[in-house]
Amino acid sequence: MFEKYFLMKSDDVLIYAKNKLADFQNSDLECKEIGDGNLNYVFRVIDKVTKKSVIIKQGYEEARISADIKISTDRNRIEAEILKLQNSYAPGYVPKVYEYDSIMSCIIMEDLSDYEIMRSALMRHKIFPNFSEEISTFLVRTLLLSSDLCMEHKEKKNRVQTYINPELCEITEQLVYTEPYFNCRNRNNIFSLNERFVQEQLYNDSNLHLEVTKLKFDFMNNAQSLIHGDLHTGSIFISQKGTKVIDPEFGFYGPMGYDIGNIIANLIFSWNNANATIEDSSKKEQYLKWIENEISKIIDLFKLKFVTLYDETCSEKLAKNNEFMKFYLENIISDTAGVAGLELIRRTVGLANVKDITSITNVEKRKKAERINILVGKKYILNRNGIKDGQDFVQILKKIKNEVE
Amino acid sequence: MFEKYFLMKSDDVLIYAKNKLADFQNSDLECKEIGDGNLNYVFRVIDKVTKKSVIIKQGYEEARISADIKISTDRNRIEAEILKLQNSYAPGYVPKVYEYDSIMSCIIMEDLSDYEIMRSALMRHKIFPNFSEEISTFLVRTLLLSSDLCMEHKEKKNRVQTYINPELCEITEQLVYTEPYFNCRNRNNIFSLNERFVQEQLYNDSNLHLEVTKLKFDFMNNAQSLIHGDLHTGSIFISQKGTKVIDPEFGFYGPMGYDIGNIIANLIFSWNNANATIEDSSKKEQYLKWIENEISKIIDLFKLKFVTLYDETCSEKLAKNNEFMKFYLENIISDTAGVAGLELIRRTVGLANVKDITSITNVEKRKKAERINILVGKKYILNRNGIKDGQDFVQILKKIKNEVE
Repeated sequence: MFEKYFLMKSDDVLIYAKNKLADFQNSDLECKEIGDGNLNYVFRVIDKVTKKSVIIKQGYEEARISADIKISTDRNRIEAEILKLQNSYAPGYVPKVYEYDSIMSCIIMEDLSDYEIMRSALMRHKIFPNFSEEISTFLVRTLLLSSDLCMEHKEKKNRVQTYINPELCEITEQLVYTEPYFNCRNRNNIFSLNERFVQEQLYNDSNLHLEVTKLKFDFMNNAQSLIHGDLHTGSIFISQKGTKVIDPEFGFYGPMGYDIGNIIANLIFSWNNANATIEDSSKKEQYLKWIENEISKIIDLFKLKFVTLYDETCSEKLAKNNEFMKFYLENIISDTAGVAGLELIRRTVGLANVKDITSITNVEKRKKAERINILVGKKYILNRNGIKDGQDFVQILKKIKNEVE
Repeated sequence: MFEKYFLMKSDDVLIYAKNKLADFQNSDLECKEIGDGNLNYVFRVIDKVTKKSVIIKQGYEEARISADIKISTDRNRIEAEILKLQNSYAPGYVPKVYEYDSIMSCIIMEDLSDYEIMRSALMRHKIFPNFSEEISTFLVRTLLLSSDLCMEHKEKKNRVQTYINPELCEITEQLVYTEPYFNCRNRNNIFSLNERFVQEQLYNDSNLHLEVTKLKFDFMNNAQSLIHGDLHTGSIFISQKGTKVIDPEFGFYGPMGYDIGNIIANLIFSWNNANATIEDSSKKEQYLKWIENEISKIIDLFKLKFVTLYDETCSEKLAKNNEFMKFYLENIISDTAGVAGLELIRRTVGLANVKDITSITNVEKRKKAERINILVGKKYILNRNGIKDGQDFVQILKKIKNEVE
């Protein structure tokens, strides 16, 4: 096929797809660029007659948002390899990868156009009754099975080496673990009504800074599991048929709690969106209740499934021990609380805000929603060692909501 | 030079040295194999006239002790690169590397024949008044300067990747962190008078197993610093002129406490040797006192120098914070205690015993020395979070000595 990298347009992708995919060789194809991410170009290619389709995702060395940001296309290799691994750990929970082309930095993969992005669906206040059941399975299987608990240790170290991801980790270290706690005028995006609040609550709290630093060093040094690394509700395709996790380009060996905590925080953004925008009070109550239950169930189902899978698959001699399992699992949950707190804060005041919050048009309600995020975030970080199960996460959220409103 | 790897004999080394080293080209050379390690062949090449000399260390894929043990010669690359790095962090504390030859897996390096192996010197009850001063400088500089506290984080991650060391880490995970706690008949070497004692104290103590497992996961997952990985007194060349650390082939990114703890434990072996073998009681007292002071000073000088170097060199924005430094340093010291405990135990009952102990010919004294090692080791592991400074290490040693004797 193409022997030298270039950034494809739709017409190039048509030629590329015909050449790469036997099924499409003689088809009448259509190609649309559908990406809206910051780093990659995403094309959907459809056979007009059979309606068969694939996604072709091409990486580029300059970020789409700014040519000044250069990021190696090695991230696309990492994404393709992690998708294959995750599919082996948790079959059906990620799109299938048909091929990775290292010359073009292209992943050819399953089209999920009958699914929708979870963040948008939740902003329309849709309910997915099986989400906690499904995402907890994905989390337990991908995180536990890639750790030293279940892997031969030499093979695991080779995996750590394969998935070292310096550039994308740096983005996280800056955006999540550093900037929200300092007055970075050109980087943080702070809603005008909360400027003084952010100053007091985030920039001037030295105890908070201490705990954030501990969490940052854990993120940088703890090669616990092959994590997704960016598991927010914009990285999840969902439908009543199921849940598909996409975009693991931030993946590397890091702390398990990073993935779980991101899910919890992003559900809280949806909760805040619903709280601020649903007018019918019984509908609102019902929706908030559903999200609260999902948060609680994700944690508790994770714990339950973790124990079962640990018993079945743990191959580390010393770790086959109930007391150690308990200790290990408690640490995962407190890390989860810490990361959920960091994500709540950074998506409220940092460079990358979330639509769930920025789309709240009533300024008073937006101000309060943001304060809930910030105060819940702090509580999760500062009290993380006392947070043990799903209800602990929900109780803190409800208590702070009452205090702010 | 030689274009394909083969295992050299002394005669080959003569040809090799003349070819590799301009200084030796026209010299009358002598070559002796002086290695007594388990993995490598070590030759000393001397110019008979000028007396200039170098060491040529060649790796081989089969261990010298058993052809069944195969270990990649990648360890020799790791050793050469780490020696160069350590020399940049702590100039003069490691032998100079003149060249690494990847084809022959050979390191050509500084000859230290005017130094002696520290373990042997301490078994002859020699005193080195500057040891704690020197080794604490080596430890602080190599450990702190290779960590995320002082390195640009992307560069540090590339280092982690370069020094992944699965095979040699596996040896440590088995010999230090697993076998001494189970009845491994073909692996552990237990002195006959202590068989029941080991059974009770090590094999049957589930609380000890739990704490050892926590330490094992820290060793496997915590990519804190580029550690030496095998820093016992047999890896140290010493003379009244100074201290040189050799043989970092076990090096990788792991917990700082691993190196410091190994030094402490190996000084305790020397202490036990002196306690059991010096007959003149005032000489004995004086020698034990010197070692006790060295143990105490290594910890306290490490802490002092760590604080100074941290203030001077920490480049991580969030970590420039006294409270975090205190937290971080406390963790290093408790890890140190844990590792010192593991090393005390594994060198007493595991596959690789130490001469300091096995050479004690009085069986009753040897029995007691071993029990001191085991009980101090357990105390260090189980109480590690309460161990804060040099005196804490020494007090536990003296208290248990009194209980055993």
